[in-house]
Amino acid sequence: MPSYTPPVRDTRFVLDHVVGLDRYSNRPGFTAASADVVTAVLEEGGKFVAEVLFPINHSGDQQGCTRHADGSVTTPDGFKDAYDRFVESGWATLSAPEQFGGQGMPHVVATAFEEYMISSNMAFAMYPGLTHGAIAALLAKGSQEQKEKYVPRMVSGEWGGTMNLTEPQCGTDLGLIKTRAEPGGDGSYAITGTKIFISSGEHDLTSNIIHLVLAKTPGAPDSSKGISLFVVPKYLVGDDGSLGARNAVTCGSIEHKMGIHANSTCVMNYDGATGWLVGEENKGLAAMFIMMNAARLGVGLQGLGVAEVAYQNAVIYAGDRRQGRALTGPAQPGEKADTLFVHPDVRRMLMEGKALTEGLRALCLWGALQVDLSHHAEDEAERQLADDLISLLTPVIKGYGTDKGYDIATNAQQVYGGHGYIAEWGMEQYVRDARIAMIYEGTNGVQAMDLVGRKLAQNGGRAIQALFKLVGDEIAVASSADATRDFALRLDRALKDLQAATMWFMANGMQNPNHVGAGAHSYMHLMGIVATGLMWLRMLTAAQAQLAAGEGDAKFLEAKTITARFFAERILPDAGALRRKIEGGSDSLMALEPEMFAAA
Amino acid sequence: MPSYTPPVRDTRFVLDHVVGLDRYSNRPGFTAASADVVTAVLEEGGKFVAEVLFPINHSGDQQGCTRHADGSVTTPDGFKDAYDRFVESGWATLSAPEQFGGQGMPHVVATAFEEYMISSNMAFAMYPGLTHGAIAALLAKGSQEQKEKYVPRMVSGEWGGTMNLTEPQCGTDLGLIKTRAEPGGDGSYAITGTKIFISSGEHDLTSNIIHLVLAKTPGAPDSSKGISLFVVPKYLVGDDGSLGARNAVTCGSIEHKMGIHANSTCVMNYDGATGWLVGEENKGLAAMFIMMNAARLGVGLQGLGVAEVAYQNAVIYAGDRRQGRALTGPAQPGEKADTLFVHPDVRRMLMEGKALTEGLRALCLWGALQVDLSHHAEDEAERQLADDLISLLTPVIKGYGTDKGYDIATNAQQVYGGHGYIAEWGMEQYVRDARIAMIYEGTNGVQAMDLVGRKLAQNGGRAIQALFKLVGDEIAVASSADATRDFALRLDRALKDLQAATMWFMANGMQNPNHVGAGAHSYMHLMGIVATGLMWLRMLTAAQAQLAAGEGDAKFLEAKTITARFFAERILPDAGALRRKIEGGSDSLMALEPEMFAAA
Repeated sequence: MPSYTPPVRDTRFVLDHVVGLDRYSNRPGFTAASADVVTAVLEEGGKFVAEVLFPINHSGDQQGCTRHADGSVTTPDGFKDAYDRFVESGWATLSAPEQFGGQGMPHVVATAFEEYMISSNMAFAMYPGLTHGAIAALLAKGSQEQKEKYVPRMVSGEWGGTMNLTEPQCGTDLGLIKTRAEPGGDGSYAITGTKIFISSGEHDLTSNIIHLVLAKTPGAPDSSKGISLFVVPKYLVGDDGSLGARNAVTCGSIEHKMGIHANSTCVMNYDGATGWLVGEENKGLAAMFIMMNAARLGVGLQGLGVAEVAYQNAVIYAGDRRQGRALTGPAQPGEKADTLFVHPDVRRMLMEGKALTEGLRALCLWGALQVDLSHHAEDEAERQLADDLISLLTPVIKGYGTDKGYDIATNAQQVYGGHGYIAEWGMEQYVRDARIAMIYEGTNGVQAMDLVGRKLAQNGGRAIQALFKLVGDEIAVASSADATRDFALRLDRALKDLQAATMWFMANGMQNPNHVGAGAHSYMHLMGIVATGLMWLRMLTAAQAQLAAGEGDAKFLEAKTITARFFAERILPDAGALRRKIEGGSDSLMALEPEMFAAA
Repeated sequence: MPSYTPPVRDTRFVLDHVVGLDRYSNRPGFTAASADVVTAVLEEGGKFVAEVLFPINHSGDQQGCTRHADGSVTTPDGFKDAYDRFVESGWATLSAPEQFGGQGMPHVVATAFEEYMISSNMAFAMYPGLTHGAIAALLAKGSQEQKEKYVPRMVSGEWGGTMNLTEPQCGTDLGLIKTRAEPGGDGSYAITGTKIFISSGEHDLTSNIIHLVLAKTPGAPDSSKGISLFVVPKYLVGDDGSLGARNAVTCGSIEHKMGIHANSTCVMNYDGATGWLVGEENKGLAAMFIMMNAARLGVGLQGLGVAEVAYQNAVIYAGDRRQGRALTGPAQPGEKADTLFVHPDVRRMLMEGKALTEGLRALCLWGALQVDLSHHAEDEAERQLADDLISLLTPVIKGYGTDKGYDIATNAQQVYGGHGYIAEWGMEQYVRDARIAMIYEGTNGVQAMDLVGRKLAQNGGRAIQALFKLVGDEIAVASSADATRDFALRLDRALKDLQAATMWFMANGMQNPNHVGAGAHSYMHLMGIVATGLMWLRMLTAAQAQLAAGEGDAKFLEAKTITARFFAERILPDAGALRRKIEGGSDSLMALEPEMFAAA
């Protein structure tokens, strides 16, 4: 059976040396995050998830959720108890605003904790994760009355929340939704329709579930410009906060899925359910995107979180399992065989896992800091820079992060050989769980199109220029120091590939937008490599500085130095191939008529 | 639910224009394969598997195998009936020698049929697949008496066969096996030990199961040089062929796995079971490798087979599902949305599937021809060339073929969006099934080491030089024709990357063998790209020739031409990145002490 140790030391290193959290400690939005408190959150939070959530991860996968004849859903054994402890211990309220009962921690600290929670139990983490998304939408677009009625008990964890977008005929293309909202004359609406793939749609963890639902009002435009957002509680809530009548929203079935079995994925039937408009009519998509952007960063974090626990176990297995001998002769001649660590190809898989999990951790936390700064930065220029950078990189963190998370989980499973394929060893669950993160909250192809079709060109390319300047400036500094020059020059080559690919899009996209679409996925990966490369440049610089000063844990810092080199030698080279693919354009992609695909 | 259409047209194209099967029609070993017979095998065989095996693929996955208290195992509903029909229709006997009741078809034709069988139902195909491996070992190493006793009824499908290598403490490192064989004095041995991960180890499809088992005789060397191979029938077989006493070999449990649920993966307990030595004492590993090499080509074919059916369904879904609009404006303005075919990133995934499945099909069939030629070629030089090429490329077909098979299945699932993650749509099964092919019959890391550590250097590098000459010669010819020049020049760049990587190994491997191990996996992929590229060069050349002559199906041939271009633009560029990774050597891979891997 797998184990899990929260990587507190690495999180701390990233917060100190990549994010530079202490530089912001006196700013609004950061004051709750003193160094002591952050340490306590990481250590105690890590301990909590490892002790309470991790032990029910595998059993939860094996048992799954159960829907009963009355439409109620039971989560796997131990989930309700763990959720109660999660709420009682206050872990639900970490980053919520203090005025609604939250602890007001910066997003970056909550993100660090969220990674640990995902590693421990991704399916569990989705229940509070969906609630956080719903809170974000209500805070941004809800009326004062709606905020006061719903948000405090969602923050506390007493109630859950969901996002209801997808219908059988539409996922990405929300203009096609059919769910209707008929005004009742009293300010309420009667919501009717079927929503599918609703994560945490029905369960036994909370006393109420607050659904946020996309629907169309009568006469609304027949496109994504005719979508409105509604709040539809499972139980109606009285003005005194008491639970009233059961609303006409029920779970019609739960899906049998490849993974995340312990999270209930529901078909939700709305049969004239009572709901209330959130924000303006026909502006539902914008409101939904508030949830979606937060959720996409959260899904990127799922890529990291599952990869981390899978990687950790592969490392342990490589040290336990003895098979064969080192190519250079027996490493442990007293034993019948050497451990897997002696085999270069096992090392390759482990080093890829290390280079990418540590790189993605830095990128996720640095991205979370940009979210904080976009709200709390001191001046408008700094706020806008942070907003530009995180808008640009959200699809990259989601798309590149989850593609790589799946690769890392697959490699970790591979280290186990045949045992990796057997359920009781726990590794195959990580592959199955990691797989969904590439699909939901917008498939990774949709992320890639969001990046090249929207984010690149926004505001005259301000965000991508800001990224080029950021990376270029840090390369320039690092190129002048012996300890970082080689890495900086290699990263510079990847940056130039990214810049050339961007220029190629500009030169060819106007003539034929398919040229941009054809290169979108490669471009997302290219930017992921450069952004993760920037993180490794910062980690390498900090490690070298500390080693030179005789500070810190020398082994940990040497590992950072070696892993940075591995990143440069084994991951950066893909940048050139991605650029060449992008420059191939779309002609060979778009030429086949549909019936020409079949070889039969 | 998915569907499946055997790609007969493409198989035919490959047999005619890549393999050139008709050139061999008068040779020994090929005489049974007249053009008419081959066509009948493809068409009738394809029809059989699509009608009989495919319909029980998804249900077989959902139901799985059941072990009963007495150790017996029941396959899923419909499997026994389908197996009976498979045997009655003669599909079991295709390539077996005529003297043992087979049809004596060349391996290349049996391979074409085997692909269809895997696409229809991989778990089912493994039952006769394991039997074929056991037949091969008995024919190569068994005594005349053993051949006569066991082989005819294994050929007919009346009895099954298995391979018993792995034990709890060893998979790759077979020197560690503990199973013992005590001589009984009458020529038989008493076999005692536990074998795990035994595919088709126990089931209800056949009246007897002939286990081939690795074990150690008393006093045997404590290494892989002390392993012997034994034949251990489930039921002892009398001299008249009648079934006698139940042997002391039982299924202790069946594994709960990520996929291939309908194939029973057994823990087999040998409690003094009666067995007989196959071949010479302590030469068991060599005998086992006869099975293994055939099995590895078969596993590479599993990569292709699962990828093909997953790809086919993604193509169908892309034509059915409407979501969003083309970047160039509505393609079907009369509909509410365009089909997925308009989206370049969906096209990217489909074109990768097409370029790789068709490329791998050609490579698998061309490889199978080399197996035939290595037995039946006219002169010793031709025989040796074929043997060299297939020895070299067996790990590539297995490792590259299954890595890519998994990628293609994952991409096909991705085309389905959220529906791809739901069991009832059938796509997630393909990913789970494809995953095992990267692990068993030697993990893909083991394949990579077999390639660089053994096959490259054998006979002074004769095989790799032969491959370089083959590819180089065909590039030289194609470079002189307008229709193929661009592709040939691009392939030449990849060939030069492969040659440079080979030289790098030669220059650096003596000094430190870890440098070779560190690049092994990248090298296997690099060779996979070049070998598949050679197949595409042949297909492109044939398509251009036919188009110029006004022969053949123009749409099919245009699709070949366009897909070749896609291969050149989107897959060949990886060769350069792989070479750079190889040239990075092993320093950063091998530097970390084991305890430095953890970030915690």
